[in-house]
Amino acid sequence: MNIEMIEAAAARLAGHARVTPLLSSPFLDELAGRRVLVKPECLQQTGSFKFRGGWAAVSALPDDIRARGVIAFSSGNHAQGVARAAALHGVPSVIVMPSDAPRLKIANTRALGAEVVLYDRASEDRDALGARLAEERGLTLIKPFDEPQVIAGQGTCGLEIAVQAAQEGVSEADVLIPCGGGGLTSGIALALAARAPGLIARPVEPEGFDDTARSLASGRIERNARLAGSICDAIITPSPGEVTFPIMHRLGGPGLVVTEEEALRAMAAAFLRLKIVLEPGGAVALAAALYHPAAVAGEAVIAVASGGNVDPDLFRMALDRYGEDA
Amino acid sequence: MNIEMIEAAAARLAGHARVTPLLSSPFLDELAGRRVLVKPECLQQTGSFKFRGGWAAVSALPDDIRARGVIAFSSGNHAQGVARAAALHGVPSVIVMPSDAPRLKIANTRALGAEVVLYDRASEDRDALGARLAEERGLTLIKPFDEPQVIAGQGTCGLEIAVQAAQEGVSEADVLIPCGGGGLTSGIALALAARAPGLIARPVEPEGFDDTARSLASGRIERNARLAGSICDAIITPSPGEVTFPIMHRLGGPGLVVTEEEALRAMAAAFLRLKIVLEPGGAVALAAALYHPAAVAGEAVIAVASGGNVDPDLFRMALDRYGEDA
Repeated sequence: MNIEMIEAAAARLAGHARVTPLLSSPFLDELAGRRVLVKPECLQQTGSFKFRGGWAAVSALPDDIRARGVIAFSSGNHAQGVARAAALHGVPSVIVMPSDAPRLKIANTRALGAEVVLYDRASEDRDALGARLAEERGLTLIKPFDEPQVIAGQGTCGLEIAVQAAQEGVSEADVLIPCGGGGLTSGIALALAARAPGLIARPVEPEGFDDTARSLASGRIERNARLAGSICDAIITPSPGEVTFPIMHRLGGPGLVVTEEEALRAMAAAFLRLKIVLEPGGAVALAAALYHPAAVAGEAVIAVASGGNVDPDLFRMALDRYGEDA
Repeated sequence: MNIEMIEAAAARLAGHARVTPLLSSPFLDELAGRRVLVKPECLQQTGSFKFRGGWAAVSALPDDIRARGVIAFSSGNHAQGVARAAALHGVPSVIVMPSDAPRLKIANTRALGAEVVLYDRASEDRDALGARLAEERGLTLIKPFDEPQVIAGQGTCGLEIAVQAAQEGVSEADVLIPCGGGGLTSGIALALAARAPGLIARPVEPEGFDDTARSLASGRIERNARLAGSICDAIITPSPGEVTFPIMHRLGGPGLVVTEEEALRAMAAAFLRLKIVLEPGGAVALAAALYHPAAVAGEAVIAVASGGNVDPDLFRMALDRYGEDA
């Protein structure tokens, strides 16, 4: 992994992925006690940064390999990113999802052009099913984070942050990033180290699922005790990746941890002050910036708002609880 | 009014107003039956396009005049745009509002740096109060739409649309614009006529408040029968302006009309598919693009989403009604 791979991904993404702006509000600055700049990846195609990695990976394949199609295991943002990237390349995609995935997510992924293959969590082996499909059809597996081209794609977000922060006059700041397996955090860390070394990538996770923060503290890959049960489902993984962790350890951290309630409150703040829609997992970095100011250094902070694919019910809950007091 | 005034306003806005992106979603394309490109001015500073006009007007004043301060009559987006523009110029602003304006709007306008002066609708003459304050303190009145520098500022949105539509390969399309007094519509119409003549500015209004559509049809300024009672309060005015109407009549139209329910439904669609927060008045152009496709010509349509300053209660109502079926 190096900056050249990220630059190459950026060249392939140009005109296909969206350059998201950098947003701010004097109300958020006052809450945080410093300038807050927000990178709204919820405005990216398919509603999250995952489209960057999906496009980077699909576009990197040789033509004849790509033409046979791609496969991914995901019921969430990665599924949508890969499905859309494949459809825009005119190649098939197969997305393997548990049969109990939300119907809306299944329908959306199909509508984005994917063939959705459902499996029963209790009786079927997902990996064996995927391997068989890939073998039979010659599909290429696109992993969600521990894959260099995916990391390179997510890193293009970091290239944009480097340019946009400089335009805002910010050369030294923590860059807070919602972190699951670490694809986005490690990609941004690589981009910043090369293009804006005063900006430091720091992963943010929800309480109880702070595998990356603990891994960065101990220096080795740690695992979460639980793998489900968080409203921040978009960023829950067993542990940081074998490719992503060394990058984060070398270039980023330390990690920050917020509560689910703080994530909901940050969703309401983003609604009120930035007019963007965030999902809980996409709001944890903004939550850290707003409600843990003592854990951040410097006169400005940059928070990546990584996704906005949230059900109306959950969004209403955030507004019910914090719409008058974000 | 000419394109040079808009270009000059753009030069003054550079680095201060945000260049908003152009958003899209395959789901919206399918709903509308054509490509839909959305210009999200809800992401502009203060949550609406009004910051453009506010900044353009304040920055156009001679230094000694500007230093004495500005005054505006508004309880809505214009108030916030002028207050913030004045604060960022380091000059005082006085915003005159009815004493029964929502407390949140009063608080927000104060927080943006304005002195809010309240008057009693029943017993006080707003214009006389404002004239006295302006006289006493040497304040300059910033009118909300019928003022060339304000129109020039709003026109900068049209310059961005001209460039961004060309990047998307769109050279002929209707550009649908939420319309109150016509500042935004006339400014965009001027910009497009000069820079992208295949893009046609068309105002969109809520049912029952279609003064501009009727004025464009009859060729003279028509008035609304009612002046209140719409959830699209941001774009309710008695009639198009004496400066804005001739521009719209020469370069734009015909107007479109949507229902309040369609505006709420478009808010839900923007939530689900674009991850942006719109107020009802800011959603009428998107509503026309999505739910009145037969009233639009061409293979693509551009909808300006003019503002997102909506109370949580009203937003929840849009999600309750249309969150599952936008």
